[in-house]
Amino acid sequence: MTTKVDPWADIQGKVDYDKLIKEFGTEKLDKHLIERLESDAKKKGMTLHHLIRRGIFFSHRDLKWILAEYDKGNKFFLYTGRGSSGEVHLGHIVPWMVTKWLQDVYGVELWFQITDDEKFLFKPELTLEESNRLAHENALDVLAVGFDPKRTKVFIDTEFAGTMYPIAIRIAKKLNFTTAKAVFGFTNEHNVGAIFYTTMQSVPCVLPSVIAGRNIPCLIPYAIDQDAHFRVTRDILPKLGYYKPAALHCRFLPPLTGPGKMSTTGSAKDSTIFMSDDPKTVRKKVMKYAFSGGKDTVEEHRKHGGDTTVDMAFQWLTYFEPDDEKLLDIKRRYEAGDLLSGELKQILVDTIVPILLEHQKRRGEARKAIGDCLIKDNKWNG
Amino acid sequence: MTTKVDPWADIQGKVDYDKLIKEFGTEKLDKHLIERLESDAKKKGMTLHHLIRRGIFFSHRDLKWILAEYDKGNKFFLYTGRGSSGEVHLGHIVPWMVTKWLQDVYGVELWFQITDDEKFLFKPELTLEESNRLAHENALDVLAVGFDPKRTKVFIDTEFAGTMYPIAIRIAKKLNFTTAKAVFGFTNEHNVGAIFYTTMQSVPCVLPSVIAGRNIPCLIPYAIDQDAHFRVTRDILPKLGYYKPAALHCRFLPPLTGPGKMSTTGSAKDSTIFMSDDPKTVRKKVMKYAFSGGKDTVEEHRKHGGDTTVDMAFQWLTYFEPDDEKLLDIKRRYEAGDLLSGELKQILVDTIVPILLEHQKRRGEARKAIGDCLIKDNKWNG
Repeated sequence: MTTKVDPWADIQGKVDYDKLIKEFGTEKLDKHLIERLESDAKKKGMTLHHLIRRGIFFSHRDLKWILAEYDKGNKFFLYTGRGSSGEVHLGHIVPWMVTKWLQDVYGVELWFQITDDEKFLFKPELTLEESNRLAHENALDVLAVGFDPKRTKVFIDTEFAGTMYPIAIRIAKKLNFTTAKAVFGFTNEHNVGAIFYTTMQSVPCVLPSVIAGRNIPCLIPYAIDQDAHFRVTRDILPKLGYYKPAALHCRFLPPLTGPGKMSTTGSAKDSTIFMSDDPKTVRKKVMKYAFSGGKDTVEEHRKHGGDTTVDMAFQWLTYFEPDDEKLLDIKRRYEAGDLLSGELKQILVDTIVPILLEHQKRRGEARKAIGDCLIKDNKWNG
Repeated sequence: MTTKVDPWADIQGKVDYDKLIKEFGTEKLDKHLIERLESDAKKKGMTLHHLIRRGIFFSHRDLKWILAEYDKGNKFFLYTGRGSSGEVHLGHIVPWMVTKWLQDVYGVELWFQITDDEKFLFKPELTLEESNRLAHENALDVLAVGFDPKRTKVFIDTEFAGTMYPIAIRIAKKLNFTTAKAVFGFTNEHNVGAIFYTTMQSVPCVLPSVIAGRNIPCLIPYAIDQDAHFRVTRDILPKLGYYKPAALHCRFLPPLTGPGKMSTTGSAKDSTIFMSDDPKTVRKKVMKYAFSGGKDTVEEHRKHGGDTTVDMAFQWLTYFEPDDEKLLDIKRRYEAGDLLSGELKQILVDTIVPILLEHQKRRGEARKAIGDCLIKDNKWNG
């Protein structure tokens, strides 16, 4: 079975990332580029982000070009986003962690889009009121990741449409239904707002350029499922006189229960770790749901050791334990049978709980900072 | 050949308006309703508008209902609009004249939409800058019709999208491509902005209700070619808890050269009378282009008389000469051969020149008043 990877698919099963590079026509993030990123980090007294080092960020478009522009003094801006259909979970913050790292390394602006319109248009049961309420809640989670508030602009589509719509229709004029259908798999049953929506997701790629009145390069870190939008964007923007946006792609954080993409619909919600979960809840979820690569009995496990390639607690540690030495040590001990599954799960709990607590603390503080970061139109009001 | 009547067709040939009533499922504007309108006009010391009296406004939807609501104290508002793809001509102001009359008779608000987005999305060569520039020019022509500035709100889509887009997507969620295709004749080659656009034209039907937080009836006077938009709107709005908009439909002003709808594309432009034309230009166009129902020679004409049913100068007089006695007298004299074609044309010139001069005078004054009428969002600007 081929796993379908597009912006609205419920992704299940193992994803073949090398195949996606070919299918989507992206480039592998190679040794030279990684070294370049590492050297830039060093200049700021930082180290290479472990999500890049470990290949969780695995693919890109035009990253080499955007760094060459940076060297020439043509600084880029970062753009990423969030669809507001529910609470933010650990899977969502994976691309944001590296986005923050890039902001710190390159000292650049971040434009962060929250697409309350998209989620309303694509989720039959979701009201716009609820999608917008979630957008404001999610905005706090964005800031809690630790972005520099002075260099970060957050905007919610339905509150920024006065600025966005005139740009969106310029993009829309270059995109016919045949192409939209081919790229996104639309049928004639899709609503006309959903069909139009992708142009709203293209807008932030050029918005800073439109405002500044000059062409500014754009780098978008995102999970690979969003790539369809930006393939379209990259086709159209040069026709309007703008740069193609560069991209940096990451894998999904697989669900605790096994391969695929984390989801918050149906029963999958039970095993999802939300940024608001308390330590007790985290422990309960990890212990109950994390798919184990351990053996059936303690005796067998001690003798043969566990399988880290399928063990989700270990897989998650590759996302959230930045220390390579420590991770390698855990791997060795688990594969040797020294570490039991329950002990490995406890290590995961001990690793992510501080991340969540720190997030929750910063999220509380974000209520003050959000006023400076959230940009919106002033609608006419009678 | 069937003449296709939809928002974007180039309408040529004789239009069968009775057939359109059946095809579009509207109702004939009957004697009882016309008497009702006349009696309301009398209360204000006004007379029935000749465009209604003469059947140029010929069809409606729910007019009876909206007047019953009015009687109950549930006042309606008027909504009509203009697509800004060129200069305003005499054909455009036909529905606006009756809209003004309705505003005066019922003392109601008018919400006037100028769709710079639509024209940009549907006209391949038109830039958004030009469409928007024309929108501002056209806004002056709207006010020049004589609407009460205190009761008139004019808005240009790309400058009001912050307010409109969140409402448009609620409508869009209820409209799939299958339906849009069936109603508007879209193909897969249409751009995604054009496909979405109709929802922006639906928005003003509910905008005053959204702002007021209560349901306000809406009456839309328009040329029948726009009906497709409002058939869709009428289907969707009740699902969102709003009234269906009521409608009042008029025929097109046929081109001077013969039956159809006035156009400003190609050679048709030469025979079009623009609101900015000076008396000399008007005379030249009427003399040169107005299709004559007169006979080939003066002798024959004197003997057999002219045919008012095909004579465009006479047809136009039915739109612009409000005095029935005068019109009947002209008809009699022309059919009797007393009036020659050139003389009839001169009567038309003498009738429309004062309308144009008055319009031009008021248009000059509109530059001051427009500031109070034009409503827009304040976009975020860095």
